Amino acid sequence: MRRTPTIGSPELDAATGAALVFKCENLQVVGAFKARGACNAVLSLDAAQAARGVATHSSGNHGAALAYAAQRRGVPSHVVMPENSPRAKQDNVRRYGATIHFCAPNVPAREALCAEVQASTGATLIHPFDNEDVIAGQGTAALELLEAHADLDVVVTPVGGGGLLSGTAIAAHGVRAGIRVYGTEPADAGDAAAGFHAGRIMPPPTTHTIADGLRSGVSARTFAAMRQHVSDIATCSEAAIVEAMRLMWERLRIVAEPSSAVPLACLLERTLDLRGARAGVIVTGGNVDLDRLPWQQ
Amino acid sequence: MRRTPTIGSPELDAATGAALVFKCENLQVVGAFKARGACNAVLSLDAAQAARGVATHSSGNHGAALAYAAQRRGVPSHVVMPENSPRAKQDNVRRYGATIHFCAPNVPAREALCAEVQASTGATLIHPFDNEDVIAGQGTAALELLEAHADLDVVVTPVGGGGLLSGTAIAAHGVRAGIRVYGTEPADAGDAAAGFHAGRIMPPPTTHTIADGLRSGVSARTFAAMRQHVSDIATCSEAAIVEAMRLMWERLRIVAEPSSAVPLACLLERTLDLRGARAGVIVTGGNVDLDRLPWQQ
Repeated sequence: MRRTPTIGSPELDAATGAALVFKCENLQVVGAFKARGACNAVLSLDAAQAARGVATHSSGNHGAALAYAAQRRGVPSHVVMPENSPRAKQDNVRRYGATIHFCAPNVPAREALCAEVQASTGATLIHPFDNEDVIAGQGTAALELLEAHADLDVVVTPVGGGGLLSGTAIAAHGVRAGIRVYGTEPADAGDAAAGFHAGRIMPPPTTHTIADGLRSGVSARTFAAMRQHVSDIATCSEAAIVEAMRLMWERLRIVAEPSSAVPLACLLERTLDLRGARAGVIVTGGNVDLDRLPWQQ
Repeated sequence: MRRTPTIGSPELDAATGAALVFKCENLQVVGAFKARGACNAVLSLDAAQAARGVATHSSGNHGAALAYAAQRRGVPSHVVMPENSPRAKQDNVRRYGATIHFCAPNVPAREALCAEVQASTGATLIHPFDNEDVIAGQGTAALELLEAHADLDVVVTPVGGGGLLSGTAIAAHGVRAGIRVYGTEPADAGDAAAGFHAGRIMPPPTTHTIADGLRSGVSARTFAAMRQHVSDIATCSEAAIVEAMRLMWERLRIVAEPSSAVPLACLLERTLDLRGARAGVIVTGGNVDLDRLPWQQ
């Protein structure tokens, strides 16, 4: 993995009242933190399993990450993607030699096609988040963040399926028990926040949130880890995601995808109020269709 | 200054045939390497000079950098800018408390208005490039680059007035005499390349190149340094600048302004052929109007 840099901006500190450092996983291999979990999972397979290949369903970044991990190990990969995935994410998966299988843009369709692909090829499913090796791998971004900034009070991530949030929270508490970890989610896909507050898993969202990486529901495994290690989960509006994304491009000068902007969106809307805190924010990915930017639509 | 990160991309290596590392000065304070030279110059003034303030003419990034440096030292700053400067660059200058003075978009107009401002305020001119302290400051990006990547064969920068290219070449040769340093320039503002090959300074360009940071002519001081320390200056088309800029956004996931894309544009067009070389590229800045991206026009 690349040890990605952290950056900050006085303007974003002023806008949120917090002292923010952004961990740039958009600069990671494949342009997303997902490379961490996928590589850990693929490298943990035994030789016979690995030789039969790996498969997954993914809105894109985990698919690209799995393809990358499989290519590095020299084994085949199969990626089931919704047919409306951003072009940049499709290209990213093809780049690393995966076979793409397109499905309708809903969870049952993608799980069904993935099961078919596994049955016909013998490939091992590497689930995007419901997998302990994946969760452990995702947690390494927080380890690097806390090595570089040992004084952080808080770490904030987006939450979709909960792999990054679980891994981050477990890793952060392994470093120091007193660190608070928050999840952030689009209100339009607010199942994790609702479930966290109700104490039970909510059904996966049906949503067109612009944060296309966060359209999954959580699993029993990630939900349990969040309940144990996460302080709270906040939600934000779609308009705040677009504003936060643009601010990150302008003030941090990085290409961050909409899902990456959800933590800053919650801080701007004060649904997550971290005034006075030193907070690390994981910037999850930078795969965006540059022909269709949300502030131009 | 921030010690900016370096990043690379297998896809850009494949497209150019070189092993490239990009020094991300777009992630520098004020979003450009210009902060280095401006701070060095402002911090080198004696107390009485500094108290009367500083002034400059600039297409934008040097103006913002000078405003930042003056703000840090607690002294006033005046920036003369062409009235057609990108909005993002105007905002960047205002953010640090400078007084902006608008002029017609040509070199005589901006020099005349800057002289007026100096006369009426007593401010010291900090020229964007024709100043030894500025040139020395710009060279520190190359020092960091060569500390992080001691094995580089080549360093490449854009050239406008020549402050960055001079400082880079002097610094690189201070580290190791055998390093080759190349300048790169839009063909539509190709005065530095033409002058370098002819052995005499050419008149400043009249140009609308998209690389708005590179519309200056060189000075006797920067020209002499380039003749002594630079291996060659290459030029590229406007179309290649747009293509290179988009590739940097997509593959490096950074916001790089058009001037920053000129080195990669020359590598893609093979007007600068570095196949087989290990080359460091200085990404000069990331201040872009996000409402007007060149591949959408």
